[in-house]
Amino acid sequence: MEKVITMAHGSGGRATGELISAIFAEEFNNDVLNKMEDAAAVDGSRRIAMTTDSFVVTPVEYPGGDIGRLCVCGTVNDLLSRGAIPQYLTCGFILEEGLEVVKLKRIVHSMAETAREANVTIVAGDTKVVEGKGGLYINTAGVGFFTDAGEVSAEGAKPGDSILVSGTLGEHHATILGHRMNIENDIKSDNAPLNDIVESLLKSDVEVHVLRDVTRGGLATVLKELAKASGNTFVVEDEKIPVSPQVRDFCGLLGLDPYYMGNEGKIVCIVKKEDEAKALEIMKNAKYGEDASVIGHVEASKPNEEGSLYSMTSIGGMRNMDILQGEGLPRIC
Amino acid sequence: MEKVITMAHGSGGRATGELISAIFAEEFNNDVLNKMEDAAAVDGSRRIAMTTDSFVVTPVEYPGGDIGRLCVCGTVNDLLSRGAIPQYLTCGFILEEGLEVVKLKRIVHSMAETAREANVTIVAGDTKVVEGKGGLYINTAGVGFFTDAGEVSAEGAKPGDSILVSGTLGEHHATILGHRMNIENDIKSDNAPLNDIVESLLKSDVEVHVLRDVTRGGLATVLKELAKASGNTFVVEDEKIPVSPQVRDFCGLLGLDPYYMGNEGKIVCIVKKEDEAKALEIMKNAKYGEDASVIGHVEASKPNEEGSLYSMTSIGGMRNMDILQGEGLPRIC
Repeated sequence: MEKVITMAHGSGGRATGELISAIFAEEFNNDVLNKMEDAAAVDGSRRIAMTTDSFVVTPVEYPGGDIGRLCVCGTVNDLLSRGAIPQYLTCGFILEEGLEVVKLKRIVHSMAETAREANVTIVAGDTKVVEGKGGLYINTAGVGFFTDAGEVSAEGAKPGDSILVSGTLGEHHATILGHRMNIENDIKSDNAPLNDIVESLLKSDVEVHVLRDVTRGGLATVLKELAKASGNTFVVEDEKIPVSPQVRDFCGLLGLDPYYMGNEGKIVCIVKKEDEAKALEIMKNAKYGEDASVIGHVEASKPNEEGSLYSMTSIGGMRNMDILQGEGLPRIC
Repeated sequence: MEKVITMAHGSGGRATGELISAIFAEEFNNDVLNKMEDAAAVDGSRRIAMTTDSFVVTPVEYPGGDIGRLCVCGTVNDLLSRGAIPQYLTCGFILEEGLEVVKLKRIVHSMAETAREANVTIVAGDTKVVEGKGGLYINTAGVGFFTDAGEVSAEGAKPGDSILVSGTLGEHHATILGHRMNIENDIKSDNAPLNDIVESLLKSDVEVHVLRDVTRGGLATVLKELAKASGNTFVVEDEKIPVSPQVRDFCGLLGLDPYYMGNEGKIVCIVKKEDEAKALEIMKNAKYGEDASVIGHVEASKPNEEGSLYSMTSIGGMRNMDILQGEGLPRIC
């Protein structure tokens, strides 16, 4: 086929067919998708979780990953955040005219590899072409199935609970921003599917109250939302927040706060205090969880302080934190 | 909130929250979505169908509909084409900076109305903002459940079967093209959810072999694909193809072929010959099916002619038809 995408590839006719055979069919090869029906038929025998996410990151390829890996990880991690095991994905591609076909091939390959790593099947897809500058957007929607461990939801945090995070913060944000600003460093995106961490926790006897992946808006935004959902107060300690030396330097240089930096392979886990040590050990032994840390705890709120988030500074001060204001970093995911 | 969308509305922080409350929350109001979790939990007790579609139509508002109505109809009709009853939708919005908020509100309202008409619940959503010219793209993914009538698939056509189409062809294509070319006429898009037609057929004792909605690529592309999938030959009669006088005039003026014009509310139905009259009556009595017609039949293919599509002209000639070549009309859906 041609070397760049043209409007004809969005026609629904022969050129679209060629695009699908040349780029998508082999990479996403599976019995359900190969039928090329209008909708995929899959087994569904218990309560299901559904989610969707559009990915508009720029650049579409960056150190440590690309938009293909990112879109699978994002959707898989959203399902895992409900305690559901991801199983089926759909993907909708919006391609800008002029997109290089070799680049699209790399991205689709990366997507297929990540889907295999995350143990999900891509069962339906769609392709559209629009005018533009040769970029692309990908939407993924996912279906997962709940396990016997039941559903996990945002409001589950209870006073006394321990708050853990699965690893160092800010890599994805620093990677994208550094790339855009032409800052040389060796920071790589953390984009990763977190199946192993979550499935290991759910299989164990740890009493998991909340799971939530940390993406746009960063750790503080996620914790504040979870505090509000539960009506309790969250207290985290600055010194316990895992940040790599490289990201710490990067933040220092640019005046950024790791609490508000975006991630694409990190999850917050809130467990019963008694299970804290066991949860930490499980997370550390799971893939992508080696830098997991206990970062704080949940308290009953004082009157009129429901849903507060405080960070304790290294000298013992308390900072009342809110969700991200303004735009953060646009098009990070 | 502001009158136009800015990059801050894609931050995942406060501005995104405002956008969601001001625009989406009220329109899509339901218990599942209101929880604002990373993934929606829904009931799933039998085999499910999944599909996805991105919508990039321009203009985003046109006579008879808009991208909001279109995206619900497209996804619902894809599920119905498998014989599955649509139940849950997810939606991913990619908004271009500068989009007018009042326009977004109209579109979201139209989407909510169409979802109610099609009896589907929007259970998960996502919003991103990109640079651009104030337009928007919407991706919808859908889950439907199969009925006791079983699954309907593309390869089901058998020699002898009758081919029906649910109504007049080309309205959506003519609407979009006419609007872009500033041609004044009273053609309106046919964008519609086809639940009533399909559910009525599936509830009846008509032996339905194939259902397929007719979108990009037009009737000929769909029939050729279905002929190939079944390995049989399809023969349709030009004189039986329903086309409104307005669309016929429009096509005559511009040299367009209604066989290749896009639709967004039409479905092909292939049934056992004996059930032809009953199927036609059911379709005619269903919402959006009043102009349904029997347009042709399925034959066993001669050797080396498997998957052929012929149209019989009014003077008895036979035209061997292929799927759409080239680009048709870009960004029609």
